[in-house]
Amino acid sequence: MPDDSRLAARLDPVLARIDADLDDALDRLAALLRIPSISTDPAYDRDVETAADWLVANLASMGFDAGKRATPGHPMVVGHGGTGGRHLLFYGHYDVQPVDPLNLWRRDPFDPEIQETGAGRVIRGRGASDDKGQLMTFVEACRAWTSVHGELPSKLTIFLEGEEESGSPSLVPFLRENAGELRAELALICDTGLFDEDTPGICTTLRGLLGEEVIVTGPDMDLHSGSYGGPAINPIRVLSGIIASLHDESGRVTVPGFYEGVPEVPEDVRAQWEGLGFDAGRFLGEVGLSRPAGERDRSVLEMLWSRPTCEVNGIIGGYTGEGFKTVLPSQARTKISFRLVGTQDPHAIRESFRAMVRAALPEDCNVEFVGHGASPASVMATSDPAFETARLALSDEWPQPAAFVGGGGSIPVAGYFKTELGMDSMLIGFAKDDDAIHSPNEKYDVRSFHKGIRSWARILAALS
Amino acid sequence: MPDDSRLAARLDPVLARIDADLDDALDRLAALLRIPSISTDPAYDRDVETAADWLVANLASMGFDAGKRATPGHPMVVGHGGTGGRHLLFYGHYDVQPVDPLNLWRRDPFDPEIQETGAGRVIRGRGASDDKGQLMTFVEACRAWTSVHGELPSKLTIFLEGEEESGSPSLVPFLRENAGELRAELALICDTGLFDEDTPGICTTLRGLLGEEVIVTGPDMDLHSGSYGGPAINPIRVLSGIIASLHDESGRVTVPGFYEGVPEVPEDVRAQWEGLGFDAGRFLGEVGLSRPAGERDRSVLEMLWSRPTCEVNGIIGGYTGEGFKTVLPSQARTKISFRLVGTQDPHAIRESFRAMVRAALPEDCNVEFVGHGASPASVMATSDPAFETARLALSDEWPQPAAFVGGGGSIPVAGYFKTELGMDSMLIGFAKDDDAIHSPNEKYDVRSFHKGIRSWARILAALS
Repeated sequence: MPDDSRLAARLDPVLARIDADLDDALDRLAALLRIPSISTDPAYDRDVETAADWLVANLASMGFDAGKRATPGHPMVVGHGGTGGRHLLFYGHYDVQPVDPLNLWRRDPFDPEIQETGAGRVIRGRGASDDKGQLMTFVEACRAWTSVHGELPSKLTIFLEGEEESGSPSLVPFLRENAGELRAELALICDTGLFDEDTPGICTTLRGLLGEEVIVTGPDMDLHSGSYGGPAINPIRVLSGIIASLHDESGRVTVPGFYEGVPEVPEDVRAQWEGLGFDAGRFLGEVGLSRPAGERDRSVLEMLWSRPTCEVNGIIGGYTGEGFKTVLPSQARTKISFRLVGTQDPHAIRESFRAMVRAALPEDCNVEFVGHGASPASVMATSDPAFETARLALSDEWPQPAAFVGGGGSIPVAGYFKTELGMDSMLIGFAKDDDAIHSPNEKYDVRSFHKGIRSWARILAALS
Repeated sequence: MPDDSRLAARLDPVLARIDADLDDALDRLAALLRIPSISTDPAYDRDVETAADWLVANLASMGFDAGKRATPGHPMVVGHGGTGGRHLLFYGHYDVQPVDPLNLWRRDPFDPEIQETGAGRVIRGRGASDDKGQLMTFVEACRAWTSVHGELPSKLTIFLEGEEESGSPSLVPFLRENAGELRAELALICDTGLFDEDTPGICTTLRGLLGEEVIVTGPDMDLHSGSYGGPAINPIRVLSGIIASLHDESGRVTVPGFYEGVPEVPEDVRAQWEGLGFDAGRFLGEVGLSRPAGERDRSVLEMLWSRPTCEVNGIIGGYTGEGFKTVLPSQARTKISFRLVGTQDPHAIRESFRAMVRAALPEDCNVEFVGHGASPASVMATSDPAFETARLALSDEWPQPAAFVGGGGSIPVAGYFKTELGMDSMLIGFAKDDDAIHSPNEKYDVRSFHKGIRSWARILAALS
């Protein structure tokens, strides 16, 4: 029997099993979504533990040697299974984003539901897409494979993090302490999206991420604007001025030295991107926008995949409740993040940003900074033939051939796998732009989940 | 017996009674402070009613014909007492500001306490100074007078509002509907401060107040900055830019037409102000500041008493909780207020401000405005001899002679008494700059309360 036929003989019953088992797989995902594992808020610490326990039990039930591994923060889940073939490590994260503004959710974010929509069935709830739904596509592919064949196609380590949404503080020490156990031939990461609904993507670049919290204090206490309005400095005004100064007229970031290490996109990559037929108008239109707001003279794909940004993720100061209060606040604070590309150095940019803010501060104001993670951009090892193998396997599942695409997000673990374990990563995921990840009413298409499980079954078969 | 002696014979036992009754008067004030009558937050509606009931009962207990009067919002309290002499109307407000940020209070804002401080005894709690402590100075002066003499020195109407801290929406209609009942020869308003700890002030000008809430919306929903950072417009950035543009380099407000109707201070008034020996360094130093932040080339007293301002009272957008969230928010909102002087027209300024914001808005953003009150500045009728009479009576009580001063705050009722009832107002109060009104840990000096009661007893005697 030729290789292709042998592969099909092994794969086809697995795919059939996945189809038959879909409703049960959705039930399992819903059970995981019911656990509010918000890692950034200490009020949910117990729930993060519960989610880890659930995953350990779930992996063990299909034969993985699985355990919950303590860290100074939230636990890691590690499971080993299979023997022989190419040793693969799968990474996902079981923690989720906070849910505020809660009033914009149409139902309890932790009471997931399958809903019929004009664009097909979705499962709605916090984490449905990012990243519980995605990580379960891999877990369910393994389940189908073992239940059909009694074993995994090759040696496999599953590694699930509980701190991805809170800056992964324990990740690097954990990788270092357990390097021998975790090092595989290739890492598979499921935390990215489809290129479009019919075209899967393998992500070849990721932006880095630098987070900074800035707290500006003026007067010692909140003041009444009748008594002090005029002579007293207002920290909201000061902070607004600083935020307004972070971009110039052309949309470029003004932090000194920010563009050091930002490469231009090579002509061949640019040509490949242009060939993808990306519809910028539709991309923006889906979220109620009509024109790109970033750097002038850059295409939307360039802005997302190859250009660094500076964004304000939050701001608060003074009275923000119902009605009005003529207070001059003592303090205002903002959370600002930078997406980084190429060889931009997050630590150098942090220092330059802080120096810029300090220099802009009027007398009588002082500033405090809280750093929130600093990861450089990543470029994947696409010359490894595994990338082309996976691309062909993915292309068998979806209506359109899989594409090599850039990534606008930041998945620092890919960089750490390289620096700490010397291991390359391949990023494949099934999220859609309208999944509302990090937003109210997050969802995951049932089609993404179903074809995602089938995709991993194909990739595991092809890579083994 | 000459007039002065007759007056002293009537007044001295009242002052003695006030001294003897101080502890009981403080207990009554504490009882009123325990009622959390926050008018701007509907969660406290019942408490506002309770405070009105408490005042009605208190006034009735000393012989006033007192009642709670319904409005579409919170009730008014009106009490009539005394006969003959000059008909005076006293105004105060029994509602209080919200208490957030609650974590900065060193005790429950509604569990008041007498505390010993380096600067003497204070009563600490929300409303201790603004305005429950102040209105009770007048009520207690009436109580002392009636308990000593069996009657008030002249005809007196007490009029207490429950919506002052939420823009007084029911005030003008109530004045119109009850003009015959409320019109007196002169209004006494106790909602201002001492000039310094030994110098009482009669406030001769008040700034007007215009409040605007601005809500900027960009994308339809919160977005993930990894997926959209770059091309998506960020409403916090847009709002920050607008706020930063509201003042020019010299500290002047840039809203078109804003300075129309802003008069220069006459030379004689300026000379009088300079004679007050105001210590700007100390005034700012008490709240941790060292230099005036307002318009260049204006003194601090000018900034407070004769110059208009534009202040940001609150801002919120995106993620503001613990940790970090790389959200691109759909919305950002701010509360902005303008203090007005001279004949500045609040309605014209509102329109000009809104037009300026709309013009600054990029495509793909829209804006919603919520107006929060619009009152012009007031100038008192200091040529009325009652002002000099009251000044002399006040000067008898305090170490330094009373001064005619400007006022930085906005007490719109003084303007409405004039426009709706044709009645002039005299503003006398005993608050101090360090009372932390509208802020955490608000207090009122026991000395302000005690000498305030004695001051009103003297003024009532002198004006009757």
